[in-house]
Amino acid sequence: MNFADRICAEIKKKQSHAVIGLDPVIERLPAFILDEAEQNYGKNDEGAAAAFIAFNRFIIDTVAPYVAIVKPQLAYYEVYGAAGIDAYWQTVNYAQQKGLIVIADAKRGDIDSTASAYARSFFGDASNEWQTPKKVDSLTINPYLGADSLEPFVEQAIAKQTGLFILVKTSNPSSGDLQDVVTANGTIAEQVAQLVHNYAMRDIGTSGYSSIGAVVGATYPEEQRLFREAMPVSLFLVPGYGTQGGTGKDITNAFNSDGFGALISASRSIIFAYEKNKVQTGEEVQLAIKNAVKAMNADINTALKDVNKLYW
Amino acid sequence: MNFADRICAEIKKKQSHAVIGLDPVIERLPAFILDEAEQNYGKNDEGAAAAFIAFNRFIIDTVAPYVAIVKPQLAYYEVYGAAGIDAYWQTVNYAQQKGLIVIADAKRGDIDSTASAYARSFFGDASNEWQTPKKVDSLTINPYLGADSLEPFVEQAIAKQTGLFILVKTSNPSSGDLQDVVTANGTIAEQVAQLVHNYAMRDIGTSGYSSIGAVVGATYPEEQRLFREAMPVSLFLVPGYGTQGGTGKDITNAFNSDGFGALISASRSIIFAYEKNKVQTGEEVQLAIKNAVKAMNADINTALKDVNKLYW
Repeated sequence: MNFADRICAEIKKKQSHAVIGLDPVIERLPAFILDEAEQNYGKNDEGAAAAFIAFNRFIIDTVAPYVAIVKPQLAYYEVYGAAGIDAYWQTVNYAQQKGLIVIADAKRGDIDSTASAYARSFFGDASNEWQTPKKVDSLTINPYLGADSLEPFVEQAIAKQTGLFILVKTSNPSSGDLQDVVTANGTIAEQVAQLVHNYAMRDIGTSGYSSIGAVVGATYPEEQRLFREAMPVSLFLVPGYGTQGGTGKDITNAFNSDGFGALISASRSIIFAYEKNKVQTGEEVQLAIKNAVKAMNADINTALKDVNKLYW
Repeated sequence: MNFADRICAEIKKKQSHAVIGLDPVIERLPAFILDEAEQNYGKNDEGAAAAFIAFNRFIIDTVAPYVAIVKPQLAYYEVYGAAGIDAYWQTVNYAQQKGLIVIADAKRGDIDSTASAYARSFFGDASNEWQTPKKVDSLTINPYLGADSLEPFVEQAIAKQTGLFILVKTSNPSSGDLQDVVTANGTIAEQVAQLVHNYAMRDIGTSGYSSIGAVVGATYPEEQRLFREAMPVSLFLVPGYGTQGGTGKDITNAFNSDGFGALISASRSIIFAYEKNKVQTGEEVQLAIKNAVKAMNADINTALKDVNKLYW
C-alpha cells in the first residue's frame, strides 16, 4: 500500500493531523525515568539509551489513541553512540507495534552510492543477508547535492512503499539564506519544489497523494499557499508548530481543500508539556502530555473548520 | 591545538595530502574477513559490524605509515543499525590510537537545537555526565538550512579544537542543480563559500589555516581556483579523486602556493584496490592497498611539483 494512502487512512481514523516529535533530551526527562535508568545502567550511553526507551514508550502509550504519526529525530539519539541508535530502533519498533507511522527525521543527503546506503539504512534491504531487518515508514532528506543525490532515495521509497519528505523550506530564522535566494526560475526553494513535484508524480496513491512529500515550515504561512500550488499531490511535513511559534491558524494554507495534505509536527511543546507544572508522578506527566496532544488536535481541527477544510 | 595546525603538521610528517575513505561494503570485503565474522556472529548486523571492524583495522594498519587522515562515511555503517554505529566508533578510536586524524563524513544539517545535538554527537560534550566520551576530529556538514543551522557546529568546533568541512561544491554530476544556480551575488556555491570564509576567519591557527573548511569536488578543476581565492584560509576536503574520475592534475588548483590547503579524498579506489587482481590472501590484499596509497601520494605530489606547489 502506497505510503500516502496509509497515512491518510490513519489520519482519518485518529482525526488528527499531528506528528509528535520524539526528541528526548536527557536533562529534561522525568526524575522517575532517569532514576531507574541510572540505577540499572549508571550514567553513561547505555543509561541514557535505557531512559530514552522508557520515556518514548511512555509517550507512545500516551499519544497513540490521539495521533497517527511520530517523528523521532536522529540527532538526539546519536549523542549516545551505538546505545543511542539501539534506543532509536527500539523506539521505531515499539511505535510501529502500536500502529503508529514513523517518520525518521534524519535530513540525510549524499552522492549516489552513499545516498543508496542511507536509503538502505532506513528503508531496509531484503537483498542483503547480513542486514538485520528494520525499517522506518518515511525519511526526511536534504536536496543540496542535486537530483542524482535524491534519486536513490526516491527509487527505494517507491519500491519499498515508504515515504520521503524532501527539505524545501525549513522553519528556522535563517532558512532564507539559501532557500529564499532569487534566481531566474524563482527562489531556490521553488526550484526544489519543482523537483519534488516531478518525483511526486511518479507514485500517486488512491488517496490522490504521493509517497514523495516536502518539508515546508509553519513559520511562513503565505509561502505555504505557493508551495501547496507548486506541489499539489505531495504531503507536507510542517515543522515549527508549538515551541517554534506556529499555531493552528498558521498552517491551514498547507492543506488542500479536501482537508488533507499536511502533517503538523510538534515536539518539545508536547513531550515536555509536564515541565510547565513541575509535576513529577507518572500519572501527572501522562496527563500533561495527553492534554497537550488533545489541545494541539483541537487547535488544528478548529483552524481547519474555520477555513472549511475539516474533513470529519 | 587548532585543528588545521594539527592536520598541517601531520601532512608534513607523512608527506601526503591523501584522505582515505573508510566506506566498507559487505559484499566487497575479502573472503578471509567475511568468513571469520560469519563464523563468530552469523550473517546479521553484528556479523557485518565485526567484519567492518576487522577490515578497517587491516586498512588502518596498512595505510597509517603513508597517510595522515581517514574519513569513515556514516552511511555505510548505519546500514547495520546500532552494531554498525559501534563499528563506526571502534574504527574512529582505532584510527586515533594509530595517530590518524578522523573526518566523520556525515553531511549533517538541522535547525539550532538539533544542530547542537549533532555537534555534541560527533565532538563530545564534557558537560553531559550521561554521554560516554567519544570524539571525531572533524565533521562534514550541509548548509541548506542557512547560517543559524551552521553556527552551533562552528561554535563547538572552535571551542573543542575540532574541524568542520561545509559542503560548498560537491563532486557528483548533479551538484550544479542547486549549487551552480546563478543569483544576484554569484552562484549559490559562491554564496556558501562567502559564509564559510566568514566563519573561517574566526579561528586561524599558526599554520595560517582555519579549523572551518569546505568541501570542493575534484571534478571541477576550474572552479577550485575560484573557490581557493574565495576561501584562502580554509582547508578544502576534495572528493572525486579516483573512482569518480579525478587525477592529481585535476586538484592542484585546490592548493595554495604554500603547498597546503587541500585534502584529497579517495575511498573505493584504495580500500578495494585488491579487487582488480582477484587476490585474496591477507598479504596480497595488504600489498594491493599499500601500492594504491603510495601511487596516490606519488600522483598528487608529482602534480604539485609540476606546478611548483610541492612543500617537501
